[in-house]
Amino acid sequence: LNSQLSEARTTIFTVMSALAVKHGAINLGQGFPDTEGPADIVQAAADALLDNRNQYPPMTGLPELKQAVARANSRFYGLDVDPVTEIVVTSGATEALIATLAALIDPGDEVVLFEPLYDTYVPAVRLLGGIPRLVRLTPPDWVLPRAELEAAFGPRTKAVLLNSPMNPAGKVFDAEELAFIAGLLQRHDAYAVCDEVYEHLTFDGARHTPLMTLPGMRERCLRIGSAGKSFSLTGWKVGYVTAAAHLASVVAKAHQNLTFTTPPNLQRAVALGLDKDDAYFGALASELQGKRDLLAAGLEEIGFSVLPSHGSYFLIADFRGLGFTGNDVAFCEHLTEAAGVTAIPVSAFYDQPDAPDHYVRFAFCKRESVLREALDRLRAYV
Amino acid sequence: LNSQLSEARTTIFTVMSALAVKHGAINLGQGFPDTEGPADIVQAAADALLDNRNQYPPMTGLPELKQAVARANSRFYGLDVDPVTEIVVTSGATEALIATLAALIDPGDEVVLFEPLYDTYVPAVRLLGGIPRLVRLTPPDWVLPRAELEAAFGPRTKAVLLNSPMNPAGKVFDAEELAFIAGLLQRHDAYAVCDEVYEHLTFDGARHTPLMTLPGMRERCLRIGSAGKSFSLTGWKVGYVTAAAHLASVVAKAHQNLTFTTPPNLQRAVALGLDKDDAYFGALASELQGKRDLLAAGLEEIGFSVLPSHGSYFLIADFRGLGFTGNDVAFCEHLTEAAGVTAIPVSAFYDQPDAPDHYVRFAFCKRESVLREALDRLRAYV
Ligand SMILES: CSCCC(=O)C(=O)O
Ligand SMILES: CSCCC(=O)C(=O)O
Repeated sequence: LNSQLSEARTTIFTVMSALAVKHGAINLGQGFPDTEGPADIVQAAADALLDNRNQYPPMTGLPELKQAVARANSRFYGLDVDPVTEIVVTSGATEALIATLAALIDPGDEVVLFEPLYDTYVPAVRLLGGIPRLVRLTPPDWVLPRAELEAAFGPRTKAVLLNSPMNPAGKVFDAEELAFIAGLLQRHDAYAVCDEVYEHLTFDGARHTPLMTLPGMRERCLRIGSAGKSFSLTGWKVGYVTAAAHLASVVAKAHQNLTFTTPPNLQRAVALGLDKDDAYFGALASELQGKRDLLAAGLEEIGFSVLPSHGSYFLIADFRGLGFTGNDVAFCEHLTEAAGVTAIPVSAFYDQPDAPDHYVRFAFCKRESVLREALDRLRAYV
Repeated sequence: LNSQLSEARTTIFTVMSALAVKHGAINLGQGFPDTEGPADIVQAAADALLDNRNQYPPMTGLPELKQAVARANSRFYGLDVDPVTEIVVTSGATEALIATLAALIDPGDEVVLFEPLYDTYVPAVRLLGGIPRLVRLTPPDWVLPRAELEAAFGPRTKAVLLNSPMNPAGKVFDAEELAFIAGLLQRHDAYAVCDEVYEHLTFDGARHTPLMTLPGMRERCLRIGSAGKSFSLTGWKVGYVTAAAHLASVVAKAHQNLTFTTPPNLQRAVALGLDKDDAYFGALASELQGKRDLLAAGLEEIGFSVLPSHGSYFLIADFRGLGFTGNDVAFCEHLTEAAGVTAIPVSAFYDQPDAPDHYVRFAFCKRESVLREALDRLRAYV
């Protein structure tokens, strides 16, 4: 059997969700909202099913969704995108990620990635015969380590994989960091796969800037967005790639061999979602910010030391103040069993050894009542 | 950019569907029904959307769908399958195909395939670093060439990819052919990826037998089914892999990096579909058989020479009797423009040179009125 996959672990999200179910714990592990997305979008998806939208849509996506993605690129970031040739709809951001990597790399090519990282990144690069080059960001500020990043680039560098807003760190890369990365891409004639699924989930006035909007970057970036995160419908698995036509056409050729297409009724509904007004996107972020604040304050009071989170569904907390002596994996298991609250060990977001092992990630994309109950349980446990 | 993908063609189905639209032609190219699947299944999918089935389902599939796939394995083929550990739900058979291949092969491993073949097979093998070994079946009978097949197996053979019922040939592999393949798999300690998406679409009493049901094959086969073909809902992209637990667990690890999961509302509806009674599956096949007969008789009358089709959505016709002198690609373009009917050139189903170039594939999974109108157009053109 494939040597890499046979040795791979089941994703930590599945492992911890199963453990949460087993112990009746509140699941603040896997990142999914416990409230539904906008009722009108869900209704539109149901209507489209009954309206005979059930056969293969065009391979690169329904025209109406591709147009909506192009409009969103323009409206939010001033990007001028051709809906026909520069958008590819995928079965979620996970497929978008492997399709963009497959389009870029040949076996032996190197991809620069930032630790801590989402747990499919490194396996996806390796499955395609690529070589991951990892650059580590350091808590609590996760500042871009410029010298290390520069050193990670070399003659075989084909791409950098940039996740901003960043899971699990809650970091939003700033203008200077983006400019530094852009300079390296130009110097090394490399591309960027930009996982921007949390693009609309930023807090405290932090604004997400796609790397693609920087000078010279329009032709070097493949920008990934996702309906799951923008509309709180994580099960729909509708993603979209925006890239210059000569790149998008190769992504489409990967897509045709990976899934070929994505359910048309869901595509149709997501097209409506992308045209929602600013009030919708504003409320999405501000409600989430309120939940972050609620959880962060509660955790601090209980004795965790909470790192800043400027975007995404997640915050990271240092648990050493609680007096627990084991590592983060042991702590998460213990917390699930003893407190009835599930988090994700942050070491699961590292590929290289010597990961920090005193942090856990909590998802705050849950109802306030659920967050309060989780805090009550933690308080009782402490 | 990736060298294989940049040179790859856009799939012939997309190319010909676009040409059909451009010329207002009746599209008997890409294989999708022009009637909807069962109304109760579609309604169930809509109900599940409104019933809050919109967040991540479990990574290997909704338990209710996995149980339904296991029941179908037992009911149709007497296979005893554990729903928890031996089923992986995928985003369509296309993902199932690349996930099973990814689970099996390491770069440099060989995969034996039969020409003519579905056009993602060879690119999928190559994308994973595998080496395709092609064995050609010959019209009009597409008999398994035993000596060539035996010669294609060698020390690096990891798997055979078997599509039965077979697209585009309409061939259903018989018991002796399957036994011969099974013998080779055992002798060479190899696996079979069994693309059985047309399992319920067989004609004239030809019965589909999964290779997995043969002695010694339970642990060597990864059997792929698809809701698209079994319920005439090709856009849904819900597929399922049945394989021994030690194989299914590795398929799941590929799946978690390819799409992670598949929309839960569609999974729920497909679970209901799989429990439909024998009358449903019988009618599905017999209605399709009637359409095959209608199209085949009409094409013969017009001057095509039609090959037998015992299963799938497709039949192949030799067009030399019409006096057209170009090859199959030219003929399909010409037919679309001049007659207003679109078919697929059969040479598109070959990877190696010297493909036959005097055959076209017609899809008959269309309303009878549409098939009649297509025949009228062809008659008028001739
Ligand atoms: C695809 S399951 C993981 C969901 C997620 O994005 C996360 O929890 O980090
Ligand atoms: C995925 S598009 C092709 C549909 C099909 O199976 C075919 O036409 O052969």
